[in-house]
Amino acid sequence: MKNAILASTSTLHGQPYLSYLLPELQKLFKNCTEIIFIPFARPGGISHEEYTKIAGEAFKKINIKVKGLHEFDDKIKALKEAKGIFTGGGNTFLLVDKLHRFNLMMPLREQIIAGTPYLGTSAGTNIGGLTMQTTNDMPIIYPPSFKTLGIIPFNLNPHYLDPDIDSTHKGETRETRIKEFLTINTQPVIGLREGSWLEVKNEDIFLRGTLSARVFTVGKDAFELPTNSNLVHIL
Amino acid sequence: MKNAILASTSTLHGQPYLSYLLPELQKLFKNCTEIIFIPFARPGGISHEEYTKIAGEAFKKINIKVKGLHEFDDKIKALKEAKGIFTGGGNTFLLVDKLHRFNLMMPLREQIIAGTPYLGTSAGTNIGGLTMQTTNDMPIIYPPSFKTLGIIPFNLNPHYLDPDIDSTHKGETRETRIKEFLTINTQPVIGLREGSWLEVKNEDIFLRGTLSARVFTVGKDAFELPTNSNLVHIL
Repeated sequence: MKNAILASTSTLHGQPYLSYLLPELQKLFKNCTEIIFIPFARPGGISHEEYTKIAGEAFKKINIKVKGLHEFDDKIKALKEAKGIFTGGGNTFLLVDKLHRFNLMMPLREQIIAGTPYLGTSAGTNIGGLTMQTTNDMPIIYPPSFKTLGIIPFNLNPHYLDPDIDSTHKGETRETRIKEFLTINTQPVIGLREGSWLEVKNEDIFLRGTLSARVFTVGKDAFELPTNSNLVHIL
Repeated sequence: MKNAILASTSTLHGQPYLSYLLPELQKLFKNCTEIIFIPFARPGGISHEEYTKIAGEAFKKINIKVKGLHEFDDKIKALKEAKGIFTGGGNTFLLVDKLHRFNLMMPLREQIIAGTPYLGTSAGTNIGGLTMQTTNDMPIIYPPSFKTLGIIPFNLNPHYLDPDIDSTHKGETRETRIKEFLTINTQPVIGLREGSWLEVKNEDIFLRGTLSARVFTVGKDAFELPTNSNLVHIL
């Protein structure tokens, strides 16, 4: 019964927040007049209220109200009663830390598996995978676990960037980092470029957007997955 | 009694491993005929033996032998008896995981504080700070703790990269990530550009190399620290 969009990024260069996704969000949240926003990835600069307001302004364009999960004393009940859920981006370590410490990871997973429409962007997408271990973020806080929602049977790398072959910088490329992950972990990793998203519909997982995605698996060369592919057929 | 070099990178573009640092290493390890190499950051591709051999070939040019710590059954004893120690780069999560699980973090710290000459590059430099929380690496393994050697009273970001103002990519810049760290942590962070290193001499900490470093502290604008500055005077 899964019904989710896991997007690489909330925002494309030069466009307003979520604007490229609005036609999809209208379909995903078609029976919703109000959704719950999870603002916990944001590490400061703006408050949970301000971050929720930004999400609210985007969803106002498709006539959906947004309430921040931080507003509820009983957060598990709020998730259970939500008609739709959106987790925004920021720092994945902070988001995962908060979800585990508030005991929200499993309730959130259960709601998504039961069919509550879910949108993730960036860190909110990263947690859709089995673990957060292919995040690009800095470990600014020590979470109780790296395990995440596991609503898809692999890991994700949002904001995937191709190696810059002209670079003289000796830091690792994204590709090198993901290959390092695969030396001690077994789940595949999908590098989702900005503008791409996964559409999770029951057991199907379609790659959407105009770009291909980069797929990394143990013991095989990385390869390009064309857009509109169904990932259940290749993993 | 500290006597250490913490270098942003082992290798500069187009040069052999460690070659830009050899004149400094000759001074640092002037009383050593043999040093211990800690290869644990390397996540596969090459073995601990092969990685140690690479370090050995560089040190051969200054007539120093290199033995890998993985070769010793009693690793704590090996550290205690070492005339010099070098920790190479790779994945910081893996390095910190191994150092904690083998109970080597505190013995290594004690040796460095007692005056054993120490070289770190990249991940081996990152662990010189208070915590590994300003690493650029992917969390490919869940270490027992993010705490590190703390031989300097702040955190480091090796391979520091300035923001690319022409970029259309929406992932966070290095600067943004470090500022996120400072929203929930208090220690200063030094962004060490490639080709820069810290020379730790007793209580003094000099920035060396031709470049300035970027300094991030809570509640103040980031600023450039000129090369050859003594960091104890500014932090």
